[in-house]
Amino acid sequence: MQAIGPTNALYPMPTTLVGATVNGKPNFLAVAHVGILNHGTPQYLSIGLAKAHYTNAGIQENRTFSICLPSEDLMIETDYCGLKSGRNFDKSTLFDLFYGELKTAPMVRQCPVNMELKLHDVLALGRHDIFVGELIQTYADDTVLKDGKVDIAKVRPLLFDMASARYWSLGTPVGQCWKAGKALEK
Amino acid sequence: MQAIGPTNALYPMPTTLVGATVNGKPNFLAVAHVGILNHGTPQYLSIGLAKAHYTNAGIQENRTFSICLPSEDLMIETDYCGLKSGRNFDKSTLFDLFYGELKTAPMVRQCPVNMELKLHDVLALGRHDIFVGELIQTYADDTVLKDGKVDIAKVRPLLFDMASARYWSLGTPVGQCWKAGKALEK
Repeated sequence: MQAIGPTNALYPMPTTLVGATVNGKPNFLAVAHVGILNHGTPQYLSIGLAKAHYTNAGIQENRTFSICLPSEDLMIETDYCGLKSGRNFDKSTLFDLFYGELKTAPMVRQCPVNMELKLHDVLALGRHDIFVGELIQTYADDTVLKDGKVDIAKVRPLLFDMASARYWSLGTPVGQCWKAGKALEK
Repeated sequence: MQAIGPTNALYPMPTTLVGATVNGKPNFLAVAHVGILNHGTPQYLSIGLAKAHYTNAGIQENRTFSICLPSEDLMIETDYCGLKSGRNFDKSTLFDLFYGELKTAPMVRQCPVNMELKLHDVLALGRHDIFVGELIQTYADDTVLKDGKVDIAKVRPLLFDMASARYWSLGTPVGQCWKAGKALEK
């Protein structure tokens, strides 16, 4: 066991497209520094955006944003959203958009799952704004639903790892949660 | 695209063992509701624990905790930590422990990667405490290091998905971040 310095190794994380209305127009950026804060209703999720990003002001202004989950098929477009800034490039033309209940959180028809959130709070941590959103509605493509639930194998999420600077695929199920451990109960 | 209600679909997330000293003794619980808040130094990570958990008071008291990453090989023990409460079961005997700079954040020798954190803040969100930690040191097993970096393929993290209630394996690399998108630049 070696000390390697305070290196964040909490990976992989799901790669997302975060949508917001900025200066009156839909914009998207690629974000994998996300978090599940609690489990319940209301459900809170977080996204961490460097303050330098173009999107932050739009989330503050409209108090809404989306978290859209691209599949592997959308890797090139998703990565492109991480290379370009909405300041000088209209990224909304890359996708077919739709809106939900919140009206100002653009979502992506090509993403199998889209979540729209209402801004709950903003935490300032160094050079980052952490946007804490309350999940209002989730939209899933028929093709990834099984018995009304999102089938993650069909979503084929794009998993981000910083050390390798790679997107990874999801593998296979290896065990049942709240069950596998029962093997130790004797 | 169907509205399915405010269903959190931000999965998979890395399954972790969170370690803390509670009532003077090391304890661990299984946590997959985690977050990467920012990217930089200091590096902040979050874990969301229902207030009912035994561990919360220990983190508050010592202001330290660990985030340990079990590999697939440790699935049964990890899941067991999610079934048992430290209130009435000593989970520390499941693992070989070690401590780092912070002295009160127990870590697991069987986990290929262990991170120790200093408590930075606690957010109360409904029935949950969100512990925001500042990453102080990361410990990695020699077998998962390549050129001084954590090789996620060798870690073989245990990925959690709520809808299927399954642990999943990591798949294969599918593309390069900040590069794949250049295919669209013409």
